[in-house]
Amino acid sequence: MAAKSERPARVVALAGGVGGAKLAIGLQAALPRGALTVIVNTGDDFEHWGLTICPDIDTVLYGLAGVNNSQTGWGRDNETWNVLTEMRRLGGESWFRLGDKDLGLHLLRSYWLDAGANLTEITDRLRRTFDVPSRILPMCNEPVRTLVHTDEGTLPFQDYFVRRRCEPVFLGLTFVGAERAKLTPDITEALQSAAQVIICPSNPYLSVDPILSVPGLGDLLQDVRAPVVAVSPIVGGRALKGPAAKMMQEMGRSTSPLTVAEHLGDLLSGFVIDRRDRALAQAGLLNIPTLATDTVMSDLPSKRRLAEEVLRFGRSLVDDGG
Amino acid sequence: MAAKSERPARVVALAGGVGGAKLAIGLQAALPRGALTVIVNTGDDFEHWGLTICPDIDTVLYGLAGVNNSQTGWGRDNETWNVLTEMRRLGGESWFRLGDKDLGLHLLRSYWLDAGANLTEITDRLRRTFDVPSRILPMCNEPVRTLVHTDEGTLPFQDYFVRRRCEPVFLGLTFVGAERAKLTPDITEALQSAAQVIICPSNPYLSVDPILSVPGLGDLLQDVRAPVVAVSPIVGGRALKGPAAKMMQEMGRSTSPLTVAEHLGDLLSGFVIDRRDRALAQAGLLNIPTLATDTVMSDLPSKRRLAEEVLRFGRSLVDDGG
Repeated sequence: MAAKSERPARVVALAGGVGGAKLAIGLQAALPRGALTVIVNTGDDFEHWGLTICPDIDTVLYGLAGVNNSQTGWGRDNETWNVLTEMRRLGGESWFRLGDKDLGLHLLRSYWLDAGANLTEITDRLRRTFDVPSRILPMCNEPVRTLVHTDEGTLPFQDYFVRRRCEPVFLGLTFVGAERAKLTPDITEALQSAAQVIICPSNPYLSVDPILSVPGLGDLLQDVRAPVVAVSPIVGGRALKGPAAKMMQEMGRSTSPLTVAEHLGDLLSGFVIDRRDRALAQAGLLNIPTLATDTVMSDLPSKRRLAEEVLRFGRSLVDDGG
Repeated sequence: MAAKSERPARVVALAGGVGGAKLAIGLQAALPRGALTVIVNTGDDFEHWGLTICPDIDTVLYGLAGVNNSQTGWGRDNETWNVLTEMRRLGGESWFRLGDKDLGLHLLRSYWLDAGANLTEITDRLRRTFDVPSRILPMCNEPVRTLVHTDEGTLPFQDYFVRRRCEPVFLGLTFVGAERAKLTPDITEALQSAAQVIICPSNPYLSVDPILSVPGLGDLLQDVRAPVVAVSPIVGGRALKGPAAKMMQEMGRSTSPLTVAEHLGDLLSGFVIDRRDRALAQAGLLNIPTLATDTVMSDLPSKRRLAEEVLRFGRSLVDDGG
């Protein structure tokens, strides 16, 4: 077992898009090269202009490659929009903003998918091209598509999220195709060999639940020896990004880290909340080990600092637990 | 029949890419709005980056829309190459230069094709979007693909033409899929109601022959009442554009308008050659009515002037023939 012990302790992160990618960037900066594996939601994937688009994979990929647009959190830096402009002129759909560089990747991935490669292989090829040291694993290779049930009817995820800007009242979700999805060998291996598992501050319903909808993945996470620590995406009663708080309200739940912790339930060995929510822990409302710290990540140093604190907290849970 | 006689006399042009598009532009300028129909070669069409590319249709479309790159003759004006640059960076194929604006059209067309629209409908939708008054008809809706047999083996057309720059020695052609192609109602109607048919100065083997390979199209052209006039793409022993002269040499034929006239044979009612080749006509080597004029089209006035001369020559054939 010498070879194994020489390898740096491996960390697996579960992530959706912008919020999750931020902590993944911090984790990659905090860990030895190659120690991080990110399992990414693909429930947001969709077909547009005849291409398969994987928004969360790309947000994580571009973020870890350091080529993301740091203003928006998604898309490429120094992006141009010449194809989109022409597409609009020709009467094509232009509500989903695909930049030119971004489009190069979508074209290539769609071409490779059509040629029979699976999403895990393609994502690995891409992250190597971008010189990303961390592994990026799609939650599965089969298409899973999040449908959002709302008071205005059922909408494909991107219609709800981008086109309708999350305005319709949220009623529930279906992850179409999840029952046919298969746990990939890469995910099984990554989780079984992980020293720590971190659920990034992503939307628990839209980003984490689709990952857990892959048959066997939730059970594997439950049984994994490594501590599982989630970072709350709800800070001070608000979602830092996206519709998580609005969705909680519409479900009649409090917009609180408590709702996140309850939702993830007994998957968690520990929970990280923001300093401003520490009263929850002090009041004993969270019945799991909890770290309260500054969870708002504005720049690389703050991403890395939070990552280091989360990793230290995770290690402490192992030491405590024996 | 009053309605019909009030309509301007309709002219049908057969065209391939750059050379053919030049005369089509001149014809559109010379004729009343809506009088021109261009039947375009699709044997050069190919699949690239998972998209269906129709180079000749686009060259004609962009030319008639006045948005073409007037330097190269193909592609768009004020074009950018940001997707191509990214594609190259990601390891995708970059030997075929697709610009960003151009790509917008390929994406939309491929999307519409996948959705079940046929190439005739799509091309008509596009030419209306570009406000082109002339009709542009693909030679058929079924995929026909030109294979070039060479001393280095058989190559798909674009591999021969773009990737290998026509360097291998030409042996022959196969138009794959031609036997399954169907004459479209639009082409039948256009040819039957044409007052004149003009074969543009396109490569007779690579651009005109694929059009004639559509079952029934050659017979229809043979039987049509309108005069059929071809403009020679060979001027002074050279091809103005492309490999026509090189191909003739490799087939052991003389690089002469005679070779073009012989190849098109009894389809022709008349033939237009360049002024510098007029000795051929004077020597009685061309046994059809021949017009010798300046056929080199450098700008819009020269395109229009040639078009007007060709149209006048065509009308004279009808008057002569009774």
